[in-house]
Amino acid sequence: LWLTHAKSIPVPQGVMASMLLARHLACSFQHSYRLLVPAVVSVERLIRMGPLMKTEVPGLVSFFSKNAEAVHFFCNYKESRGNYLVDVDGNRMLDLYSQISSVPIGYSHPALLKLIQQPQNASMFVNRPALGILPPENFVEKLRESLLSVAPKGMSQLITMACGSCSNENAFKTIFMWYRSKERGQRGFSQEELETCMINQAPGCPDYSILSFMGAFHGRTMGCLATTHSKAIHKIDIPSFDWPIAPFPRLKYPLEEFVKENQQEEARCLEEVEDLIVKYRKKKKTVAGIIVEPIQSEGGDNHASDDFFRKLRDIARKHGCAFLVDEVQTGGGCTGKFWAHEHWGLDDPADVMTFSKKMMIGGFFHKEEFRPNAPYRIFNTWLGDPSKNLLLAEVINIIKREDLLNNAAHAGKVLLTGLLDLQARYPQFISRVRGRGTFCSFDTPDDSVRNKLILTARNKGVVLGGCGDKSIRFRPTLVFRDHHAHLFLNIFSDILADFK
Amino acid sequence: LWLTHAKSIPVPQGVMASMLLARHLACSFQHSYRLLVPAVVSVERLIRMGPLMKTEVPGLVSFFSKNAEAVHFFCNYKESRGNYLVDVDGNRMLDLYSQISSVPIGYSHPALLKLIQQPQNASMFVNRPALGILPPENFVEKLRESLLSVAPKGMSQLITMACGSCSNENAFKTIFMWYRSKERGQRGFSQEELETCMINQAPGCPDYSILSFMGAFHGRTMGCLATTHSKAIHKIDIPSFDWPIAPFPRLKYPLEEFVKENQQEEARCLEEVEDLIVKYRKKKKTVAGIIVEPIQSEGGDNHASDDFFRKLRDIARKHGCAFLVDEVQTGGGCTGKFWAHEHWGLDDPADVMTFSKKMMIGGFFHKEEFRPNAPYRIFNTWLGDPSKNLLLAEVINIIKREDLLNNAAHAGKVLLTGLLDLQARYPQFISRVRGRGTFCSFDTPDDSVRNKLILTARNKGVVLGGCGDKSIRFRPTLVFRDHHAHLFLNIFSDILADFK
Repeated sequence: LWLTHAKSIPVPQGVMASMLLARHLACSFQHSYRLLVPAVVSVERLIRMGPLMKTEVPGLVSFFSKNAEAVHFFCNYKESRGNYLVDVDGNRMLDLYSQISSVPIGYSHPALLKLIQQPQNASMFVNRPALGILPPENFVEKLRESLLSVAPKGMSQLITMACGSCSNENAFKTIFMWYRSKERGQRGFSQEELETCMINQAPGCPDYSILSFMGAFHGRTMGCLATTHSKAIHKIDIPSFDWPIAPFPRLKYPLEEFVKENQQEEARCLEEVEDLIVKYRKKKKTVAGIIVEPIQSEGGDNHASDDFFRKLRDIARKHGCAFLVDEVQTGGGCTGKFWAHEHWGLDDPADVMTFSKKMMIGGFFHKEEFRPNAPYRIFNTWLGDPSKNLLLAEVINIIKREDLLNNAAHAGKVLLTGLLDLQARYPQFISRVRGRGTFCSFDTPDDSVRNKLILTARNKGVVLGGCGDKSIRFRPTLVFRDHHAHLFLNIFSDILADFK
Repeated sequence: LWLTHAKSIPVPQGVMASMLLARHLACSFQHSYRLLVPAVVSVERLIRMGPLMKTEVPGLVSFFSKNAEAVHFFCNYKESRGNYLVDVDGNRMLDLYSQISSVPIGYSHPALLKLIQQPQNASMFVNRPALGILPPENFVEKLRESLLSVAPKGMSQLITMACGSCSNENAFKTIFMWYRSKERGQRGFSQEELETCMINQAPGCPDYSILSFMGAFHGRTMGCLATTHSKAIHKIDIPSFDWPIAPFPRLKYPLEEFVKENQQEEARCLEEVEDLIVKYRKKKKTVAGIIVEPIQSEGGDNHASDDFFRKLRDIARKHGCAFLVDEVQTGGGCTGKFWAHEHWGLDDPADVMTFSKKMMIGGFFHKEEFRPNAPYRIFNTWLGDPSKNLLLAEVINIIKREDLLNNAAHAGKVLLTGLLDLQARYPQFISRVRGRGTFCSFDTPDDSVRNKLILTARNKGVVLGGCGDKSIRFRPTLVFRDHHAHLFLNIFSDILADFK
């Protein structure tokens, strides 16, 4: 059998017997509704679960059903539990990427399996409503239990959407409407506006812009894509808008050694933001809003100081631009607070905040003054999905009950400390170790080393994700515990010791 | 008890006893998995289900929990069955709008309720994957059972998405990539393209356009919205692209009396399409694709002849533009064919076709040559949702097994014939009756008459939807039968007789 802190992963003895035991335990907790939530962790501990590799990944079974270039491998989600993802070949991997950061409380959580199978919930999954016109009777209550219970400070209004891109698209639209309505004052829509908007022209379709940062990722639909600047392959060949793009700070690590340089770097970027707002106003492409990620994720896990964001918020207010925080990847607890921007200590809250991924459903919160002045301005057929919200309500209960925010802070500290130690021992492979909660990352010398490290780790039973040009990012679930961090660090230490 | 063909809906006698009977029957078929699929209809018939109105809609319970202007009323989906939507006040309404045309086989279908509650399916609802990189093991098979089994002619490639807007956005992107790759020929991306696309500029972000039609609705995210021209409230205050907009034929009814005028009208529109393609090429905003709905839905149920669409397809080919058919609202069987564009009899199939709504998940089919040349060009975190596809596979089985396409054609004929009869009797209220399958509609004198008819019908137990300026559209489910059509026609005939 495996040891939790195994130094390496030998081909294990008695695999079949162990698998049978694991299956038996898994089946019994799946069917017993009396077991409470920590069951995943308990069962994991009981059988001393760790990675279990039977083939190289993708193995034969995966390989033959592989039909698209992006596919890493095919998965057996039924057998996946907690932090462990199982592939079709039966390989069990510690998953530190969690479906591009979108699994909140681990695979096959018994509380969620229970919800699905309760007969009174079946209707919610089968009868998907047009939520904006015909919501289910208990929907407002359910939102209070789920999203409204974690509403960020100052933002009382909520709209749900089906994904992250739709969330940002509709947040932009909300901002444009708000900005135009400030300009318009008391008067209603003019006849000219009503007519010109139908043919995509000003004044009905004004030439407003959203300011974004180089390195940002805000989605891939055409509005979002105009604010995404992480990788060329995301953008090439797609028409776009002439919208302002500011530099995002490029901090030097370790932070304590580069205090002054980093302050200067942040000041430079903020100055550029102000210059762009002025320049684009002169170009008649007025900046209606600024969008920013608390940590640029796809773009390479780029951090800035809390002070940078407070000053950015001040600049937005000074110039009358909306301040939109994109928490699609950072939200949901992985930084140790429910929303990463809560670390900043803003006096004046953000105006709009988008979410998706770990929240299981997309959407955005906003201040009251951003509420559109008429129905059907922010609208689509489904406007989200109450069945996802049913699951999310339970997820949020569990996050609170099991204190998973503090868990993320603590397990994140174990992970970060271990990474700093590896950086000290292997400076030729690891640099710029950084993180908040479990939202950690480091740089490698280049993308070929990075990709080789990811593949090697996968074959040792650890799923990692890349980001930016040469970074590796950690995006475990919220049930990632100290012992998982130790397990990873031991495996990765061995990989680095042998790495050529 | 109610009669199926009741001439009017009196406050029924013995409501409580009937409700108890209905509940009892509903519960027993919900729990008995041995009952086969036609159960909804059988049970409906058994209890002679019809509308049952207890209050004006929205009644007290709805009214007090109403919190947004667009909300019509709150629903009790658990009690909703087949074609009948039940509100929180216990009013039961014949639903001819079906959640903006998005309910394929009626509410609470027993086969779908069964699927949800089968323990082996629970994992699919709880473990949502990042489908593009880590699909579930049986996903390709499941797609073969569902979407691939109804792939439109000539389009072998499929991408799933979470909603209709994302489907059109990504179809546009696919078209832009295809067009640019034709221009680029054998050479790869140039360094200049890779650099300029990161800052939203040409040549990396070329100034391509998509040609759309006045009156079209293709979604509300910023790319889609540039091709949507149905109502000003959808577009006002939102920046847009300068893309060409052609007139859509405005046909005169009855069609047989205006053959020549309608041919001229269609020829005029097609000529304008060609002129715009030439004009926008000269403006350096090359038309990469043409998007069209088989029946303009939100814009007022505007039809054109099959010949019009065949000629439009020819124009697209002639000018090297992609031909994109948006079947988000028309797709899924309601016109009597699975895809409405199958009525046209195209020699050369369309290039790309988008879907959502009744398909329970969004996405698009396309020809092989539209496949992007690299992974991650069309991508997002979820890329749809296998749990929706699980439901869809069963829906498609049922459509085939119960011959629901022929049902839509037949029930649609009953509905259309009845509407024509009402038009003859009440020409002051009803004009331009039109339809294909159950996808029927008529015009009213103006929007105030239209809205009053919709409200009156609702209080008589029939949910209708509006579209365009003054039309009423029919969007029943695929289990809408002849007897539902008769029931509606009787109720509506009484409404018109009393209407002032």
